[in-house]
Amino acid sequence: MAKSNRIVLYDLVLDSGCTISPFVWRTKYALKHKGFDIEPVPGGFTGIKERTGGRSERLPVIVDDGEWVLDSWKIAEYLDAKYPDRPMLFEGESMKVLTRFIDQWLWRTAIRVWIRCYILDYHDLSMPQDHAYVRESRQRILGGGTLEEIQAGREQRLPLVPPALEPLRDLLKMTRWLGGDHPNYADYCILAVFLWTASVAKIPPLHDDDPLREYIDRGFDLYGGLGRHPGMHNLFGLPKP
Amino acid sequence: MAKSNRIVLYDLVLDSGCTISPFVWRTKYALKHKGFDIEPVPGGFTGIKERTGGRSERLPVIVDDGEWVLDSWKIAEYLDAKYPDRPMLFEGESMKVLTRFIDQWLWRTAIRVWIRCYILDYHDLSMPQDHAYVRESRQRILGGGTLEEIQAGREQRLPLVPPALEPLRDLLKMTRWLGGDHPNYADYCILAVFLWTASVAKIPPLHDDDPLREYIDRGFDLYGGLGRHPGMHNLFGLPKP
Repeated sequence: MAKSNRIVLYDLVLDSGCTISPFVWRTKYALKHKGFDIEPVPGGFTGIKERTGGRSERLPVIVDDGEWVLDSWKIAEYLDAKYPDRPMLFEGESMKVLTRFIDQWLWRTAIRVWIRCYILDYHDLSMPQDHAYVRESRQRILGGGTLEEIQAGREQRLPLVPPALEPLRDLLKMTRWLGGDHPNYADYCILAVFLWTASVAKIPPLHDDDPLREYIDRGFDLYGGLGRHPGMHNLFGLPKP
Repeated sequence: MAKSNRIVLYDLVLDSGCTISPFVWRTKYALKHKGFDIEPVPGGFTGIKERTGGRSERLPVIVDDGEWVLDSWKIAEYLDAKYPDRPMLFEGESMKVLTRFIDQWLWRTAIRVWIRCYILDYHDLSMPQDHAYVRESRQRILGGGTLEEIQAGREQRLPLVPPALEPLRDLLKMTRWLGGDHPNYADYCILAVFLWTASVAKIPPLHDDDPLREYIDRGFDLYGGLGRHPGMHNLFGLPKP
């Protein structure tokens, strides 16, 4: 049992203080799901290794009673293993496998397009000291061209995503949460994609009347509005073709 | 507890005696997973209502100690609820939700194309007394044209499916079964798609060196080679482009 009810979370934030990383987002939800208070250590893209005492170059990282745990998936498994008396994030091995499938599906379907639609917003919203790193690393990861060139023409590409999300809409007709009656880590993985998007999307990616809206809003409202940071942008309002 | 270890299964078979329905296939695997012997009642597409005493127009149907249970998904839930002391098909509610997602994904990705590539084979392999029904109903369901017209040009369409199965290949790099260390109903849903295909595919839909082959073969070999009826066709051997 934790000595206190607080767990330290190394966060990855934009200049507004809003979390950007989808991996940190799902870890925030996981910690609240397990009933912990979060003691955030804010910071941007640069200096992660220094902030974590050389332990990690990536976030999230948590520290629980002096124990450091790295990687969002491993953190979720750690929390279930160490605190099995609290609500479980995972249901079992099969649910873990199938969560990876739907999560990867959503990344292929949405993030793969959206990253190229919001990469300049992502840069502009990051902390000033992160600008050079974000520009250089993202231009390299996305295969060349400037961030301005990559993002250009997004009005033509954004309408491709909503129709491709139909399988998720179909699924959510049958159930309130991917966890069943209550959300679990499968929901937090899916919500993290939309949380990431809302953190950077200066123009909305989804239509006003998207049936996903009810699920997304319900997810953002969990745990006292965990997904409602003032730095977040509106996901809904993409013009109809 | 069942009075005997046998459960009656109303099967849906081709002229060879090979099961065709993917829903019957997954029920066969579910019954064997729970450790039951199957007492099959064979039959084709026509006369289902008469064979089941007016109880169902669709198969599978099982009869367990005089209790009739309809619909493959409900049969699986019934088996877990009635026989919780035997190996479980489902892990919990979240795994059920996520199984529906990957199953629907595979239908959209593979069956939607393959049904139009094999519909004439499907007709030709069915029992002679089923030919008229299969032709009429499938031409209607598939939106018109003759079965010959629908199937024509399949050599151009078949190569579209293997690349689209990459997300399943990626998942199976991480785990032996969708159930984790052992197969469960998520695996039987996925295997049922390939079992259906092998029951009707006079030319193969997958390449010889497809990494899915090991998983599919391992699944077909379960329970003493349950998927190895002599009426099945080879899934592997699609020419490379």
